[in-house]
Amino acid sequence: MTEGRSGPVTLVGGGSMGVGWAIVFARSGLDVRVHDASADVRRGVLPAVAERLAALAAHGLLDEAPRAVMARVRVVDTLADALDGAVHVQESVPERLDLKRELFRAMDEMAPPDAVLASSTSSLPASEFAADLPGRARCLVAHPANPPHLLPIVEIVPAPFTDPAAAERTRVLMARAGQVPVVLKREVNGFIYNRLQGAVLREAYWMLEQGIADVADIDRVMTSGLGLRWSIVGPFETSDLNYRGGLAEHARRMGERYRQMGAERGQPEGWSEALVARATAERRALLPLEDWEARVAWRDERLMAARGAEHKAAGQANGAPYNAPAGSTAAGGEGA
Amino acid sequence: MTEGRSGPVTLVGGGSMGVGWAIVFARSGLDVRVHDASADVRRGVLPAVAERLAALAAHGLLDEAPRAVMARVRVVDTLADALDGAVHVQESVPERLDLKRELFRAMDEMAPPDAVLASSTSSLPASEFAADLPGRARCLVAHPANPPHLLPIVEIVPAPFTDPAAAERTRVLMARAGQVPVVLKREVNGFIYNRLQGAVLREAYWMLEQGIADVADIDRVMTSGLGLRWSIVGPFETSDLNYRGGLAEHARRMGERYRQMGAERGQPEGWSEALVARATAERRALLPLEDWEARVAWRDERLMAARGAEHKAAGQANGAPYNAPAGSTAAGGEGA
Repeated sequence: MTEGRSGPVTLVGGGSMGVGWAIVFARSGLDVRVHDASADVRRGVLPAVAERLAALAAHGLLDEAPRAVMARVRVVDTLADALDGAVHVQESVPERLDLKRELFRAMDEMAPPDAVLASSTSSLPASEFAADLPGRARCLVAHPANPPHLLPIVEIVPAPFTDPAAAERTRVLMARAGQVPVVLKREVNGFIYNRLQGAVLREAYWMLEQGIADVADIDRVMTSGLGLRWSIVGPFETSDLNYRGGLAEHARRMGERYRQMGAERGQPEGWSEALVARATAERRALLPLEDWEARVAWRDERLMAARGAEHKAAGQANGAPYNAPAGSTAAGGEGA
Repeated sequence: MTEGRSGPVTLVGGGSMGVGWAIVFARSGLDVRVHDASADVRRGVLPAVAERLAALAAHGLLDEAPRAVMARVRVVDTLADALDGAVHVQESVPERLDLKRELFRAMDEMAPPDAVLASSTSSLPASEFAADLPGRARCLVAHPANPPHLLPIVEIVPAPFTDPAAAERTRVLMARAGQVPVVLKREVNGFIYNRLQGAVLREAYWMLEQGIADVADIDRVMTSGLGLRWSIVGPFETSDLNYRGGLAEHARRMGERYRQMGAERGQPEGWSEALVARATAERRALLPLEDWEARVAWRDERLMAARGAEHKAAGQANGAPYNAPAGSTAAGGEGA
């Protein structure tokens, strides 16, 4: 695969994911071609891109005029024209296996042989839709969050047959486009993103069913607590920073309590000593214990910046500026 | 219980939780008394409060001078002096059942009979440390996040013997102090906060063990995707806004996939139709479907504000402002 060849990034599927991707690539200076099988959808792409670019500009999140970004996005009528000369093809059609299979076969026939073929699927591994293709070595999943132009994570999931060079080229492209790419070491149902989301949703639905709290209050615990912190430090770093002594101390103090909660929910196995040791070793390589205090201060600095932005967004510049935000639900409700 | 009596809020335990609570109550205009059994800890309280208040002021999160807030915080040497006249007592000593039992007995003997006695415990229900007390009807859990002055959520967890009026008074006090109180309908191991956190940690450790990704990458999926969104919309609202048609459509399209992920992890039961219908009814009461598009736009507005704050905090005002933040880990790493 040629590293240096220049050419457009081609987006197949012009729904909200395709629109988000168009912004991601175009604002980073890349030429973008968008194709959708539906003429109606094609007609909607540029207006939707323009609308989102205007909002980004209004928030100071665009470093050039929206029309300069727009100029790099072209909507094309046929798949063949869309794929001509592409260096990366990003498929974002509806989540149906038959559709993906058919489309990947066509893309593999028509795209330049050195183009990477990536799917935005949130749950279907490339093994299921690309295994039989002559060009399967260049096929993989590059799963964005929704919306991709505001949430930078991209999960790159190679199938066993994917050429590691294709995953690496995708990683470099995504990083260059300002996203945060993570390459999974192997395929897994739901990838990381939806496995974590699924774990939370299962627990949230269970608590609703058990009559612990209603939907609004469960959501509130997330937005006003956990989510705010998880937007800055992930689950491992959160634990690492919550106890002086780091992750190992967290596991020593809290491991048994979490094991009990898991046991109530069909997951009786605790975290083994070896597993905690492995996670701890990785954390210590990222953050030596002598930097722990400084990192806690950094977390709190970031939290303060986030709270500041929240108050501004909620229009609470007047009154008590430390007041809680207006709640996470449209209708608001009790409790602040 | 008298609604109107004025008096100080008393904090028992002067570690980082006590310091956070002191800020929460003092900045909202309430007089605060702090007691800790250790003279060393007592000496550290005011300097720690001063340091955090200075940081809040620097971020524009305080609407008066730090010294005016400080003037409302008094450290006292004995438990009896601390409890004298208190309207609310908030205990934040180490997470040991014997300590809590002993302390709640003493507090119940010494505090004014109409004072609420609340524990900051993250996992011990009041049933376990207050069941035998004459004043158990005024005992409950009021669990904050860490740190409480930056994360507004407070879980109020009444025991079966708790007077609902005590829970309500605590809710009103916390809301008045600018926190986001949520009253649980019943006791449950880990409450909502740590049940959600536990679900994520169990899945995160499992993925590490299975060799899906390392600690840094799992954390990155959270901070650059899920956490960012969960800081604005909770798990139910996230699902509600991810599909046109709302939560019911989300369950129809994604329910089976999430059920499969759960089945791989000891949780084979899916979300029943009745459960989805209940959650949907609650969401529709909060957000009628005709307001769905506007709420998605609101979510994106809030995300843009959050991203803007992130870039500012990360000192990325120059260069491409939409670039991803520097990663969630001190040592940084690959991928943006």
